[in-house]
Amino acid sequence: MQTPDPSEVRDLKKRLCQRRSRQTERQIVAAASDLFATKGYSSVTMQDIADAARIGKATLYYHTPSKEDLGLLVVDAHLDRFIEQAGELASADLSAADRLRSLVSALMGWLAAGRELVEFIMPERGNPPPKTMRRLKRFRSEYLDVLEAIVRDGVAAGEFRRDVDPDVAVRAVLGMILHFHILTIRFQEAYKIDDVRDQIADLALGGLLVRSEPR
Amino acid sequence: MQTPDPSEVRDLKKRLCQRRSRQTERQIVAAASDLFATKGYSSVTMQDIADAARIGKATLYYHTPSKEDLGLLVVDAHLDRFIEQAGELASADLSAADRLRSLVSALMGWLAAGRELVEFIMPERGNPPPKTMRRLKRFRSEYLDVLEAIVRDGVAAGEFRRDVDPDVAVRAVLGMILHFHILTIRFQEAYKIDDVRDQIADLALGGLLVRSEPR
Repeated sequence: MQTPDPSEVRDLKKRLCQRRSRQTERQIVAAASDLFATKGYSSVTMQDIADAARIGKATLYYHTPSKEDLGLLVVDAHLDRFIEQAGELASADLSAADRLRSLVSALMGWLAAGRELVEFIMPERGNPPPKTMRRLKRFRSEYLDVLEAIVRDGVAAGEFRRDVDPDVAVRAVLGMILHFHILTIRFQEAYKIDDVRDQIADLALGGLLVRSEPR
Repeated sequence: MQTPDPSEVRDLKKRLCQRRSRQTERQIVAAASDLFATKGYSSVTMQDIADAARIGKATLYYHTPSKEDLGLLVVDAHLDRFIEQAGELASADLSAADRLRSLVSALMGWLAAGRELVEFIMPERGNPPPKTMRRLKRFRSEYLDVLEAIVRDGVAAGEFRRDVDPDVAVRAVLGMILHFHILTIRFQEAYKIDDVRDQIADLALGGLLVRSEPR
């Protein structure tokens, strides 16, 4: 048997250690995520999170310096998962229209379900702090990229109007979706997401006119 | 000749006085409006406004107790004018589609042109104060009413899809419009209104699909 090279052993130990560290981080994020969702961000303490993740408070603080940072880790995890899901929907073997419809529906559902989380990154009051704003921008741009690719597909396939500017179209669609979210939080107009998601998708896709307008 | 009834004389005097007062108020609002638009709300003083309206500062303060109140009077005047204009566009002798198109275009143009004013009632940062919020809600609901009447017309005339919920549709359209406004102020994506207003109207009207989707 060959004696292992000492540098290889160091590497292996390092990788094992990093893996354990990542696993602890995942445990922390999962615990925090559950607690924020059930008890609300503001009423959860760092001790609650350490207990739920079955680690000591020192370990918790080693991984994340503050509750705010942990909040951002949770946000990142949710956004990553949503974008991943959106990517899967976008690459399904369906028409561009059906894929767009499922992406509209996914975002509306996500905004409605992740209310607590959404308010963490899109606070109703005031401007979010720069760190949060960066996430918001990243998420927005990733979602728009996925939508835009579908619209380009649809145009290329002759499914969507050739004179559509995909860049403008996807922003208009996002605007419709976000407005309904805002309606429920700022204007207290209580739309049920399930009642409007199909209609929003119809409007985004088919527009209002039955027959094409004379130009 | 009949001796005038003393109470009639009092009434006449009162009406004359109210008329003069309204005229002074219009002068003040016009002067403030010009100054806010050219120099910006924050750098205009009450003295500037009194000078421009050719009245004394005491008269100015008699009509309006603070610059903030005056700001709201200016906002009211602009909103009233816009809603009046929207009402005219809405009752023009045109198809519902063309009327909707002109209303979308009007709001986008108004948002772009009245930037200073718009930021006064829709501040980028923070929640607007209750007085401002009331205006915003009134304006929003009046604009939506005008849009909604057109959509109902269009549905009744068989021009728009029968399965459209006008209430949801007009909010979706407003969402598209507002999102483009927000894009230019919060995300610094510099769209030129004239480049996008037709596209937004096309999307609101015709949607993305050339052919109708199978259901």
